[in-house]
Amino acid sequence: MQASSPYELFHQSSNCPARCGRVTTLHGTFETPIFMPVGTLATVKAVTPENLLELGAQIILGNTYHLFIRPGHELVRSFGGLHGFMHWDGPILTDSGGFQIFSLRKLAKITEEGAEFRSHIDGSKLFLSPEKVIHVQEALGSDIMMVLDTCIPYPATFDEASQATALTSRWARRCREAQSDSGQLLFGILQGGMYPELRKEAAQELIDIGFDGYAMGGLSVGEPKELMHEMLDASVHLLPDEFPKYLMGVGTPEDLVEGVYRGVDMFDCVMPTRNARNGTLFTSSGRVVIKNSRHREDQGPLDERCSCYTCRNYSRGYLRHLFQNREILAYQLNSIHNLHYYCSLMADMRSAIMENRFPEFRATFYDQREKTAPVA
Amino acid sequence: MQASSPYELFHQSSNCPARCGRVTTLHGTFETPIFMPVGTLATVKAVTPENLLELGAQIILGNTYHLFIRPGHELVRSFGGLHGFMHWDGPILTDSGGFQIFSLRKLAKITEEGAEFRSHIDGSKLFLSPEKVIHVQEALGSDIMMVLDTCIPYPATFDEASQATALTSRWARRCREAQSDSGQLLFGILQGGMYPELRKEAAQELIDIGFDGYAMGGLSVGEPKELMHEMLDASVHLLPDEFPKYLMGVGTPEDLVEGVYRGVDMFDCVMPTRNARNGTLFTSSGRVVIKNSRHREDQGPLDERCSCYTCRNYSRGYLRHLFQNREILAYQLNSIHNLHYYCSLMADMRSAIMENRFPEFRATFYDQREKTAPVA
Repeated sequence: MQASSPYELFHQSSNCPARCGRVTTLHGTFETPIFMPVGTLATVKAVTPENLLELGAQIILGNTYHLFIRPGHELVRSFGGLHGFMHWDGPILTDSGGFQIFSLRKLAKITEEGAEFRSHIDGSKLFLSPEKVIHVQEALGSDIMMVLDTCIPYPATFDEASQATALTSRWARRCREAQSDSGQLLFGILQGGMYPELRKEAAQELIDIGFDGYAMGGLSVGEPKELMHEMLDASVHLLPDEFPKYLMGVGTPEDLVEGVYRGVDMFDCVMPTRNARNGTLFTSSGRVVIKNSRHREDQGPLDERCSCYTCRNYSRGYLRHLFQNREILAYQLNSIHNLHYYCSLMADMRSAIMENRFPEFRATFYDQREKTAPVA
Repeated sequence: MQASSPYELFHQSSNCPARCGRVTTLHGTFETPIFMPVGTLATVKAVTPENLLELGAQIILGNTYHLFIRPGHELVRSFGGLHGFMHWDGPILTDSGGFQIFSLRKLAKITEEGAEFRSHIDGSKLFLSPEKVIHVQEALGSDIMMVLDTCIPYPATFDEASQATALTSRWARRCREAQSDSGQLLFGILQGGMYPELRKEAAQELIDIGFDGYAMGGLSVGEPKELMHEMLDASVHLLPDEFPKYLMGVGTPEDLVEGVYRGVDMFDCVMPTRNARNGTLFTSSGRVVIKNSRHREDQGPLDERCSCYTCRNYSRGYLRHLFQNREILAYQLNSIHNLHYYCSLMADMRSAIMENRFPEFRATFYDQREKTAPVA
């Protein structure tokens, strides 16, 4: 099962661990480091696939847990998988549902065999095992599948973290063994809580099994930012450089910069789309809360330095008007802008890496924020 | 003030009153007969201006009452009027607020001077006079303005209808006199309730004042469909053929066919966008309720004969999934389809008129519906 790597390194920064490359999947390639917009229910909320292509998205994410419950993986399979169902021809990564089960943990029962839980929709009893999540993801037809893992809460004792990490490793092996010959990639997930020695052991076990890429899970689960960076530092070097490295569910623009700086290749987060729907917009000079009355008469664009559809065509005053009136167009325009911000930030980072100026890029990124009010 | 007409006749059907032409405004022309999507608050709900152009919209409508309350006409003026504010460069028609005041009539007090009413948002006391609605519409910068009218409820006694119609005529004259030299067109509105003799008198008074176009109001306000058609028959011939004739707030696809058949040039209605958001979709074989479980596994498009973005790229099964989960994309895709249906229906009617086959078109239109279930 040991795979040749789907990752091709373009350039390793001479002055930091940041690196630039490309991952090849059944539905084409994507450049790294990359941000993956989240399309939970087979739609990235409030945008079309054409919007995604225009704003620079190269790969999107679907949530196995949610799609398993609604509309069901067999239905999605009958439509030609997620690609056919949702009209997106590029790469798709699906998570395994592990994080959602973790989020529901009061309603979930974890055993050696798998996770038994109740649907958040109708309370019906459901079961996911390592084999089942592979079966579901093969039905969904994603280009990159993730193993079923057990996410460790923060804080957790060493014993708790150790047991959960060992279970994740056993589940990882069962996932790899359950995989058919579909050509879909499968990534392992490194857990270990906030214990570097557990992460080290877990990394070795994942490498022994052999995956097409390696993700870091269990970070950004409530721990202080410094501890997250410390664990990230401790984790990213444990993963083999020949494969893509994915930091799951992270994060803020600052988190992306810090992740790339440390050598991470892939990110996903609901933040740009969720914040867009809540009216918090990312700009080159910090966050903008669009409902604030100071924007009422503002004829300028959201971000002078942004080239997205929203900033090219609409004013802050109009965006405020739409948001105040809960017009659907507000969610569309805000989502396009925030996703464009995230994707452009990644493209800028890729350029900086290629030109060996990532540390300077990182310094300038923080400088621009300090010169302006953080929330306007 | 007697204007040269903005209307150019292309072709008068040889076999019915249906006709084809073009109206010229400050922001370009539109072909008639035309359907105008409704953009109440400076956005046609759930679609972008680019979507509107692609689906065949040539002119859109804004609601003076709503824009007067939020965000206010002076704010809109400061953004370059509605066109600059909402990023739509084509023609815009604004209503006068008369119909909304009519809808609020329990909260409104109508005097010779104008209408006093309370905001439906915050209950504040507001006042609109004929002069004020012209002032507001000039600030909004619409290409076609409407006079302030008093809509007559159904049923109404002859005396009630007579008094309201006389007031509408006096207000119409005040509107025409209040108009500045902005180049914006102004349309009169024919009232008269369900009394043909009142409509005849009112039409003559409007013609004496002289407008750039003539609308028929007070239809589709609860009267039986047959009575509406009877009043439409009685009204449309009263309006001068040299000018555009506009049937306000109407209606279903069937209403559009009947209106065009009788010589109407312009229509507007919230039905395609509102129904889209409620999941009722118009197709060549009748209405489809997308949430019905029969669509769950349907891989075919909403309408085999439709060329819209939605039908080109998505299945009924996916549209049902989006709608069931209240995904914003559902409202976008449904709205694009329904508006495309309305605009295509008008384009097909224009072609049929040009080729002197409108009566056949009308017969075929009903035949197609009878052959299929009316609501699927």
